[in-house]
Amino acid sequence: MTLVDVHIQDRYPTRVESGSDRKWITSDEPTVRGSAQEGPASAEELAEHARNGFHIQRDLLSDQEVGACMDELKAMTDDPAIRSDERTIIEPASEEVRSVFDAHLLSDRIARLIREPRILDRARQILGSEVYVHQSRVNFMPGFRGTGFYWHSDFETWHAEDGMADMAAVSMSIGLTDNHPFNGGLMLMPGAHRTFVPCLGRTPDDNYRSSLKAQKVGVPQEEDIAELARRHGIEQFTGPSGSALWFDCNSMHGSGNNITPYPRSNIFVVFNSVENALVEPFAARERRPGFVASRDFTPLRA
Amino acid sequence: MTLVDVHIQDRYPTRVESGSDRKWITSDEPTVRGSAQEGPASAEELAEHARNGFHIQRDLLSDQEVGACMDELKAMTDDPAIRSDERTIIEPASEEVRSVFDAHLLSDRIARLIREPRILDRARQILGSEVYVHQSRVNFMPGFRGTGFYWHSDFETWHAEDGMADMAAVSMSIGLTDNHPFNGGLMLMPGAHRTFVPCLGRTPDDNYRSSLKAQKVGVPQEEDIAELARRHGIEQFTGPSGSALWFDCNSMHGSGNNITPYPRSNIFVVFNSVENALVEPFAARERRPGFVASRDFTPLRA
Repeated sequence: MTLVDVHIQDRYPTRVESGSDRKWITSDEPTVRGSAQEGPASAEELAEHARNGFHIQRDLLSDQEVGACMDELKAMTDDPAIRSDERTIIEPASEEVRSVFDAHLLSDRIARLIREPRILDRARQILGSEVYVHQSRVNFMPGFRGTGFYWHSDFETWHAEDGMADMAAVSMSIGLTDNHPFNGGLMLMPGAHRTFVPCLGRTPDDNYRSSLKAQKVGVPQEEDIAELARRHGIEQFTGPSGSALWFDCNSMHGSGNNITPYPRSNIFVVFNSVENALVEPFAARERRPGFVASRDFTPLRA
Repeated sequence: MTLVDVHIQDRYPTRVESGSDRKWITSDEPTVRGSAQEGPASAEELAEHARNGFHIQRDLLSDQEVGACMDELKAMTDDPAIRSDERTIIEPASEEVRSVFDAHLLSDRIARLIREPRILDRARQILGSEVYVHQSRVNFMPGFRGTGFYWHSDFETWHAEDGMADMAAVSMSIGLTDNHPFNGGLMLMPGAHRTFVPCLGRTPDDNYRSSLKAQKVGVPQEEDIAELARRHGIEQFTGPSGSALWFDCNSMHGSGNNITPYPRSNIFVVFNSVENALVEPFAARERRPGFVASRDFTPLRA
């Protein structure tokens, strides 16, 4: 066996020490790497995804399928084994489940669902290659007290803390509840995915334990967010349950809180190109656990 | 001089001790007491206001007037005398001004503006009588860190803590910045203003000092909010700057937080019918200060 010293260039330096190193980087990577002939997404959808960094797949699930998924989520949160699993995030005050990671490993239904052509082939089409699951989870945002997430690029975290070298991953969020404009639906900045915004501050060890609840390191400065919003504006993912939002790993996104009685649940899956398999973290001392950043790079098969 | 012992019936008992006393009360008071012939609001606007408990007056201010008002607000927040006034609410952490009460007394421009027929006559028309200013303020909600307000009826507070006997007051909020769906704009439940929802818990002394920032007493229970939302749904006040929202004192409303870079400023004025002048608080030991609940019942004149 020969050990090869692999030098991977860090194209996206982040977690920098001072504001003067916080220079924006314009990505020259393609956001869409496949074509309309190669899968279910239309040329228009792919063009929209390339331009905005996201597109919506309306009516991915029927009402019946949404109901079955909701039943599945309910069963998962009621399962004592899942409740006590480290991959399950429980809010201490209410003892309510907020997220269950590795949803595609813990649920047969979700495992089957994401292998269906309507999902897997779209992921392959966007990324132009075989794909594997970098992360999956089901999320439960309560009504009245939903807290939201501040602006961030997922890729910034995955690059810094997980060793994802390139912007060759795409996330899919299937809404299992209606997304109104006012119950904490995702906001995105169309077109901002082409810009990598380095973040200030060293990554603390075990950052993921707190960052899964509220990110402190790995969020852009207010002046960066303001300038991105000035250039790109803000759009919101709204619509009835069963639709899916596909968004590029470097999309700048966030969500407000939710004081309405309407809770939000979704299935969230990150597909990464097998050609973009993780290396060592670019800006953290240790890898995060596998349920947050999988190192099983086996291509997902139907 | 003869002292007359006036007994005013409490039609809206609130701040009750136990859940079993928390019975909803359907108001039989008219929401609109004047007619289309008596002022600038059309029959359609008045019908909408009566039905929903609110209506929007589009383009109340021109862009030029919005700019002049913004300049005025800026001058107010820069004025050391106003900054140190007890009627000015400053956020300790940022030292930023959040609200200036008695705006119509501190600013000649606002004093003149609210006496113009397009405002004063509409207030008189809705309330069917002469009116006075129960409360006025200018509000500054920052971008990135705007905190929002949980669901509440203003009337519940004004009744309990200020001695406002009847639902004969109307609020006007003039947006001086654009209200997007996602920067913390007001949410309302159309039609819920006909229902008085008693709140649990005794009113602490000096409640207003904390409740101006975040209400703890005087907010409905989650099950009440959920049922009102089920019956009435939720609408949001959105639109470009210069439009005004008129809403009934008993409208159930709230607002989410604001993580966008877009701040929000507005001029907020509560008109009360002179026939509904305050008596003693119905559910608090002491009156609140005059800048929160004026006891100068002099009719507002053009």
